[in-house]
Amino acid sequence: MEKAAKNYKALSVGDIKALGRVTLNSALGLTGAEVSINELPAGVGVPFVHAHKRNEEVYVILEGKGRFFVDGDIFSVEPGSAIRVDPAGERSLKADGESPLRYLCIQTEANSLAQFTENDGIMTESKPAW
Amino acid sequence: MEKAAKNYKALSVGDIKALGRVTLNSALGLTGAEVSINELPAGVGVPFVHAHKRNEEVYVILEGKGRFFVDGDIFSVEPGSAIRVDPAGERSLKADGESPLRYLCIQTEANSLAQFTENDGIMTESKPAW
Repeated sequence: MEKAAKNYKALSVGDIKALGRVTLNSALGLTGAEVSINELPAGVGVPFVHAHKRNEEVYVILEGKGRFFVDGDIFSVEPGSAIRVDPAGERSLKADGESPLRYLCIQTEANSLAQFTENDGIMTESKPAW
Repeated sequence: MEKAAKNYKALSVGDIKALGRVTLNSALGLTGAEVSINELPAGVGVPFVHAHKRNEEVYVILEGKGRFFVDGDIFSVEPGSAIRVDPAGERSLKADGESPLRYLCIQTEANSLAQFTENDGIMTESKPAW
């Protein structure tokens, strides 16, 4: 499935429960975020610790269990864990031994969001024919 | 689980396969995105069509099947479908009759991301003790 028109682009990244790493920014033409879906095989960690210059990251754990590292702290993560890391945070992540760790990572410019839905959303008169 | 220090905040939003709507911006102190995890019960649609003033949205379908509406176009979505909608896109979403539709929605200021990982990431010397 791939479909696009003036104000949108849609595609399928494949089976979200079986895929490896997929990044969406180029594929979807994103202008406000890099969104990636990532998998670490059982027992495997990201092979480096990294920080950022300008970007904030949000991690959302979808499947599996693991450990998250920030600035020397280590804590357990599982499906439903959500973690914000500021640009300066030195971060890494490792899957536990039993199963792969699947997670979503969203990268945005820190302090870039001017307003949320309450003020940014606009109701329209359209009615979908479904 | 809730844990925070200078450069991060982590929490659990609960069972990602069973929860209703959860928004992360206040809970995590996000500054670059609103991230929400959403559920539409089987057969139920978002009860309105909306657009945005400044914000781009990315939808990632996690579970279930449904139909997505933008500017009069309607197309099917399923796990792994990813959709970018520009601020002006008039959008809505409906779950098919058989099962709930669970999806992630990421809202960011359009054109706010200055650089991606290649230029924004910084390798550090830290070594996690795991």
